[in-house]
Amino acid sequence: MADGAAAAAPVRLHSYWRSSCSYRVRIALNLKGIPYEYVAVHLVKDGGQQFGAGYTALNPMAEVPTLELDGLVLTQSPAIVEYLEETRPQPCPLLPPASEPGARARVRALCALIACDMQPVANLRVLKHVQALLPPDAPKEAKEAARDAWARTYIAKGFAAFEQLLTTPTAPGGPPCAGRFCVGDAVTMADVFLLPQYYNAVRFGVDLAATCPTVVRIAAALGELPAFAAAHPSAQPDAEA
Amino acid sequence: MADGAAAAAPVRLHSYWRSSCSYRVRIALNLKGIPYEYVAVHLVKDGGQQFGAGYTALNPMAEVPTLELDGLVLTQSPAIVEYLEETRPQPCPLLPPASEPGARARVRALCALIACDMQPVANLRVLKHVQALLPPDAPKEAKEAARDAWARTYIAKGFAAFEQLLTTPTAPGGPPCAGRFCVGDAVTMADVFLLPQYYNAVRFGVDLAATCPTVVRIAAALGELPAFAAAHPSAQPDAEA
Repeated sequence: MADGAAAAAPVRLHSYWRSSCSYRVRIALNLKGIPYEYVAVHLVKDGGQQFGAGYTALNPMAEVPTLELDGLVLTQSPAIVEYLEETRPQPCPLLPPASEPGARARVRALCALIACDMQPVANLRVLKHVQALLPPDAPKEAKEAARDAWARTYIAKGFAAFEQLLTTPTAPGGPPCAGRFCVGDAVTMADVFLLPQYYNAVRFGVDLAATCPTVVRIAAALGELPAFAAAHPSAQPDAEA
Repeated sequence: MADGAAAAAPVRLHSYWRSSCSYRVRIALNLKGIPYEYVAVHLVKDGGQQFGAGYTALNPMAEVPTLELDGLVLTQSPAIVEYLEETRPQPCPLLPPASEPGARARVRALCALIACDMQPVANLRVLKHVQALLPPDAPKEAKEAARDAWARTYIAKGFAAFEQLLTTPTAPGGPPCAGRFCVGDAVTMADVFLLPQYYNAVRFGVDLAATCPTVVRIAAALGELPAFAAAHPSAQPDAEA
C-alpha cells in the first residue's frame, strides 16, 4: 500500500516488555508479517524514560507503544491495530468480513472491554496513584495489598463480562460467539487484545479457571501460535528476570 | 442496509443522561439521522439500575450505553460508533476517506485517548473506589476532595495530550491536524468523543482555557451543532436539575 518514500521509512516500535498495550501491537505486527526495530522504553528506570522530551514529542501521553510506520507516528494501540488492518488486510484479516457487521461489532466490543474497562484502571500509573492514597506511614505490605486488590477486582469483573460475551451469539439464533477463538474460528483483534490482558491476570494471581473457562481455553490456544509466542513479554530484548 | 426483519426491529438506546459514553452514542445516532427510543437506566437510584439481571443480560459489564439496532444488542461505545459508521456511512461520514489512512488513525487515536486514558479512570465506579480507599472516618469533604483531585488530574493530563495531537500534523509536512474540527474541517468520531469528555471537564471544574485553546475552540463550535446540542445531558428525558 505504501509509496516509495513511505516504504523506505524505518519501522520502529517503541515498546516496554511488560506493557500489555505494547504486547498487543507486537502480536498484530507479527500476524501481519511486518518486521520492525524494537526500541525499548523503560517505564521505571530513570524515573520513567517515557517522560523524556524526545519521547513525549512522539507520544504526548508518555505511554507505550508508539509505532513509526509508513512515515507516520502512530499512537494508541486500538488505533494502531485498526490502521494495520486497514492498510494490510492480508495476511491474517483481523476482523470478520464486511458482510458480518454484527460479528465485527462484537470483536470491537471485546477489544473495548479490555482497552477501556480493564487495562486503564489497573495500569502502572493508576496503581501508583492507588498506593499514594493510603496514609504515608502505612506499611509497604498494606500498600501493595491495596494495589493488588484493586487490580484483581477490575480484572476479575472484566473477564467475567468477557466470558459472557464469548458465550452469547453475535446475532439472535446464531451460534455462540466463540469458536476456536474469541469470535468464530479465525484469529481477530479480540484475540490480539485478550492474550496480553490474560497475562496481566496471571501476573496478579487472578484465577479464572472456574469462572471463565472459555477465556482460559482460548488464551491457551493463542499462546501456542508463533505470532503470539514471539510477542510474549519474556521474549523481548528488554525482558528482565 | 438492514433486511426486512432487522429494519422492523425497534431501535432502543439504554442511556443515562450524565454518562459521557451514552452521550457519545446519542451524538452519533443524531448525526446519522437514526430515531430511537430512549430507555433510561439510572446509575444511582435503586442501588444502580444497571445491576438488574434484565439489564446485565444485555450488557454484562452493567454499563451504559447499550444499543438495540438491526436486531442486534450492541455494547461498548467505541464499537457502537464504528458499527454505525460501517453500516451507515452516509449521512455524515465519521472517518476521513480510505485514501487518508493516517488521518483515520489520528481520529481513532484521539477517540482512544478519551475512551481508554481519560473516561475510565475518572468514572463513577472508579471515583467511588477512590473514596473508599480513605480511612472510613475521614470527613466527607476530604473524601470528595480526594475524588475531585483524582478526576481533575486525569482530565487535565489527557486534554493536554489531546491538544498536542490536535496541533501535530497527521503526516510529516502536512497541515496541522485540527481544522474547523478535530481532524480537518469535517466532523469525525474524534469530535463525537470530545464534547462529552469536555462536559466532564467542565463538571469537575478543570479550566482548559490557558492550556488547551484548540480543544476549547472546537468544543464551543461542536456545542452549536444541532446533533450535538440535542444529545446534551440536560436535554435528555431523565435529566435532573
